[in-house]
Amino acid sequence: MASTLPAPLDAALAALLGPDSWLTGEQMRRAHAEDDSRLSAMPDAVALPRDREQVAAIVRACRAHRVPVVARGAGTATTGAAVPFAGGVVVSFARMDRIVEIRPGDRCAVVEPGVLNGDLQQALQPHGLFWPPDPSSADRCTIGGNLACNAGGPRAVKYGATRDNVLGLVAVTGEGEIIRCGGPWTKDATGYDLTHLLVGSEGTLALVVEATLKLAPRPKAQAGLRAFYRDAAAAAAAVARLMAQPQVPAMLEFMDASAIALLRRNGSDVPDAGAMLLVEADGDDDTLLPALQALADAAEGDGLVALDVAVDGSARDRLWAARRALSPALRTIAPGKINEDVVVPVSRIPDLVAGVEALSAEASLPIVVFGHAGNGNLHVNIMYRPDDASETARAQAALPRVFALVLSLGGTLSGEHGIGVAKRDWMERAFDAPTLAAMRAIKAALDPDGILNPGKVLPPL
Amino acid sequence: MASTLPAPLDAALAALLGPDSWLTGEQMRRAHAEDDSRLSAMPDAVALPRDREQVAAIVRACRAHRVPVVARGAGTATTGAAVPFAGGVVVSFARMDRIVEIRPGDRCAVVEPGVLNGDLQQALQPHGLFWPPDPSSADRCTIGGNLACNAGGPRAVKYGATRDNVLGLVAVTGEGEIIRCGGPWTKDATGYDLTHLLVGSEGTLALVVEATLKLAPRPKAQAGLRAFYRDAAAAAAAVARLMAQPQVPAMLEFMDASAIALLRRNGSDVPDAGAMLLVEADGDDDTLLPALQALADAAEGDGLVALDVAVDGSARDRLWAARRALSPALRTIAPGKINEDVVVPVSRIPDLVAGVEALSAEASLPIVVFGHAGNGNLHVNIMYRPDDASETARAQAALPRVFALVLSLGGTLSGEHGIGVAKRDWMERAFDAPTLAAMRAIKAALDPDGILNPGKVLPPL
Repeated sequence: MASTLPAPLDAALAALLGPDSWLTGEQMRRAHAEDDSRLSAMPDAVALPRDREQVAAIVRACRAHRVPVVARGAGTATTGAAVPFAGGVVVSFARMDRIVEIRPGDRCAVVEPGVLNGDLQQALQPHGLFWPPDPSSADRCTIGGNLACNAGGPRAVKYGATRDNVLGLVAVTGEGEIIRCGGPWTKDATGYDLTHLLVGSEGTLALVVEATLKLAPRPKAQAGLRAFYRDAAAAAAAVARLMAQPQVPAMLEFMDASAIALLRRNGSDVPDAGAMLLVEADGDDDTLLPALQALADAAEGDGLVALDVAVDGSARDRLWAARRALSPALRTIAPGKINEDVVVPVSRIPDLVAGVEALSAEASLPIVVFGHAGNGNLHVNIMYRPDDASETARAQAALPRVFALVLSLGGTLSGEHGIGVAKRDWMERAFDAPTLAAMRAIKAALDPDGILNPGKVLPPL
Repeated sequence: MASTLPAPLDAALAALLGPDSWLTGEQMRRAHAEDDSRLSAMPDAVALPRDREQVAAIVRACRAHRVPVVARGAGTATTGAAVPFAGGVVVSFARMDRIVEIRPGDRCAVVEPGVLNGDLQQALQPHGLFWPPDPSSADRCTIGGNLACNAGGPRAVKYGATRDNVLGLVAVTGEGEIIRCGGPWTKDATGYDLTHLLVGSEGTLALVVEATLKLAPRPKAQAGLRAFYRDAAAAAAAVARLMAQPQVPAMLEFMDASAIALLRRNGSDVPDAGAMLLVEADGDDDTLLPALQALADAAEGDGLVALDVAVDGSARDRLWAARRALSPALRTIAPGKINEDVVVPVSRIPDLVAGVEALSAEASLPIVVFGHAGNGNLHVNIMYRPDDASETARAQAALPRVFALVLSLGGTLSGEHGIGVAKRDWMERAFDAPTLAAMRAIKAALDPDGILNPGKVLPPL
C-alpha cells in the first residue's frame, strides 16, 4: 500500500526532518503498524522527531492537511491504542529518549517520552530512588507509553500508578501548541490540572514531549508471604483486612482457583486451594520484619489454608516463582487469550470471581483470574484455541459479558491497559451520555480538528 | 442593594426551592457575600439546594438568563474564590451535608460537598480510617471547599493533598448536566480523568455534588522531633535528606529565623537559631521508634544546633506548641498580614528564604516564612499596620516581588489556597500563553457560557 499523504505535507515534513527521520518506505511503515493487541493498520509515514519543536511543527503541518497524528512509544499497548487505523503520520519518540535531569534533592526526574521505563530505573538506582510504575513490560515499554495509558503494575497498591507519579508535563496539543503544566513540586493549587488530565488520554489530547516524574526512595529490603485460602471470598476478606491496617503492602496479588489448578498441573509446588494471595512488605532492617508481621497477622483469618513467609532473597524468589510461572502456564491451556484488566471495588472481588466462574462453565472455556487485588484490578484471561471456530466465537461472546459483569458490580473497564479501540465501544456503558459529552468537549478543546489518534478512547458519535 | 435578578428566574427558582431555600433578603445575601479574604460582593440571591437535581436545575435556569452561579462551602477560602463579584446566585451546600456511605472494605467514603472536614474525620474514627487533607480550618471548612481549592495541610507530605485523595466525583457542569467520573476504586485507565481536573478548579468548571474520597488507615501512634539549624540552608539540606530516605515523614514543617525570633520574644522555650524543622513519624508500636530514629538520623548533619525528640503524647504536644504559638504571635507584630502559600522545588527553599530576607530588609517590614517544607509549600507572611499608609503600600508592593521571586526559582503561585482573584493576575506570569489558552478552552468546554464563578482563576482576556 502506497502512502497517500498530500504531496505538500510529505515535502514539508521531509524537509523538516530529513531522510533519516521521515520514513515513507513500506517496510518502516509496516514496522510501525501494530502494537501488542496484534491489531494492525499501515501509517502513511513515520516521523522520528528529535525535539519538541519538531513535534509541534509536525502537528501543525498535519493539522493544516487534516492528517491524523498517532504518537508511538514502543508499541506495547494491548488495546490498539498505537495502531494508526485512520492512516496518517506515526510520531515515534524513539529518538527523544534522553533522561534530561535527575534531581535527587527534589525527588524527581525530567525525561523525554522515549526513555524506557527499565532504563530510567537503572539510572535512578545510584541515587537510591525509583519510579513506581512497574508494568510487566518495563524493560521494553517507554515512559511516554506509560503516561499514555496510565500504566500500573503490582507496586501501584502502595506507590500508585503512573498518574499518581507525574508532577508535570510539557506537551503538544492538537493545535501544535506547546503547553507546560505542573513542575518539580508535589503540591499545586495553581490553575487547572492539565497534568493528570493528559495522563491516560492515549495521545488523543496532546503528545507528551517531556515529563517531570515523582520518584520514591528505594526501600532497602523486601520480604513476602504467600497465603492460600479456601475460596475467593476468604481471600477477598483477607485483602480487605490487609488494606485496612496501617502497613500498606508493597504488593498484593491474587490468583483464583483455576490459576492455582493450572500451576499444579504444570508442576508448581503449591497446595490445592481456592485462592492465593502474594503479599509483599518493603522497608529497612528495622521496619521490615514488623511490617511483615503486621501483614501476616492481617492475612490470617477464616478460610486460610496455608501461609508461607519468606524473609530473604531466595525464599522470596521461590514465593514469586508461582506468579512468574503463570503466564507461561497459561499458554499450555490454549494458545488464544483475551486478557482484560478490569477494576472492581475491592469488596466486590468475590462477586467478580464467582461471576467469572459461572461464565467459564457456561462458555465451556477456561477463564483464569489473577492480578492486583489491593487495587481491585484483576486480569481476566479467557483462554481459547483460535483455530477452533466455536471456541473463538464463545470467547468473543464471553468478553462483553465480563464487561457487563464488572459494570454491574460498580467497577470500570480498565485499570492500567487503557481503552484504545479494544474497549472503546464499552465506554457508552461505563459512562452516561453527559459524562461522555464532557469528555468529547475536552477532546475538542485541546484537539479541535480531531487529528490526534482519531478513533481511540471515545466511541464515534 | 436590591437584587437585580431577572424576574422569571427569581420566580422559577423560588418555585423550585421554596422560601426556606431561596433567599433574596439583604441580610442573608450579605451573610454569603465574603470569604476569609475579607473581600466582599453582594450576590443577588442565595440558593440552598437539597440534592443534585436541584443543583442542576439551578444551573440550567441561571444559564438560560446568563446569570452567574457561585458555589459556596463554608467561605473559608483566603483568595476571594467564594466572593460573587459579578453578582448572581450563590449556591450554598449547607444543606447537602450528608455522609452518604463509609465503605471500610473499599477504604473510601461517599460524601456530599457540605460535610465539614472535621465531621468526616470524626465519623471515620470508629473505622480506624481518616481522610488525609488537614487544612488548619478543618473544623469549619467543607469537603466541597477542600475540593475546590485542592486544600492541603501538614500531612500532605506523606499522604498527599485533596487531589491525591479523591477517587470519584459527581458534578454539575456549566450546562447543568450531571456528570460522573471515577468511583470506589484506586486505579483507573478508563477515559479522560475529569476527577482530578475538577479538583482545584474553584467552582469554575463544575459544581461538585458528591465525592468518593480515598481514606487512609489511621496510624496507631505518632512521635516527633524538633531540630534547630544554623541557617535556612542547613535546614533545607536536612529536608532533602529527610525526603530522600524511605521513611517518609508524616509531617515536615519549617520555620525561618524571623519566626523563631518572634517565638522567643513571645516567651516560647526555643533556642536562638536560624531555622527550625518539626518532623513527625507515624506508625504502630513496632514501627514507630525505628521510623523516628530514621528521621532523627536524617535530621542530623552540618549546621544542626539542637535536636529534641518526643516519643509520647505530652512531650509531643510541647514540641508542637511552638508551631501553634506562631499564628497568635504573628498578630503581636502587626495586625495586618498578607499570607501567601507559594511553592518552590524543595532544593530552592534556601534561595526563597534568602530572597524573602532581602525583600524584608528592603521594605523595612517583617516577613515571616514557615510551612510545609517537605512539599516546598511555604507560607510567606508580610506583616504591616493597616493604619499606616506607608507600611500598607510597602506590603502591597512587596507581594508581587514575592511571586516574582518564586517564579524565578522555578516554583508556582499556590500549593493549597488556590488562585481566586487574589493571585489571578499572576497566572499570566506563571503560565505561558498557549497553556493559559488550553485552560480557557477547557473552561469553555465545560462551561460554555462562562456562568460558573466568573472572573476566578483565569485572568480576563
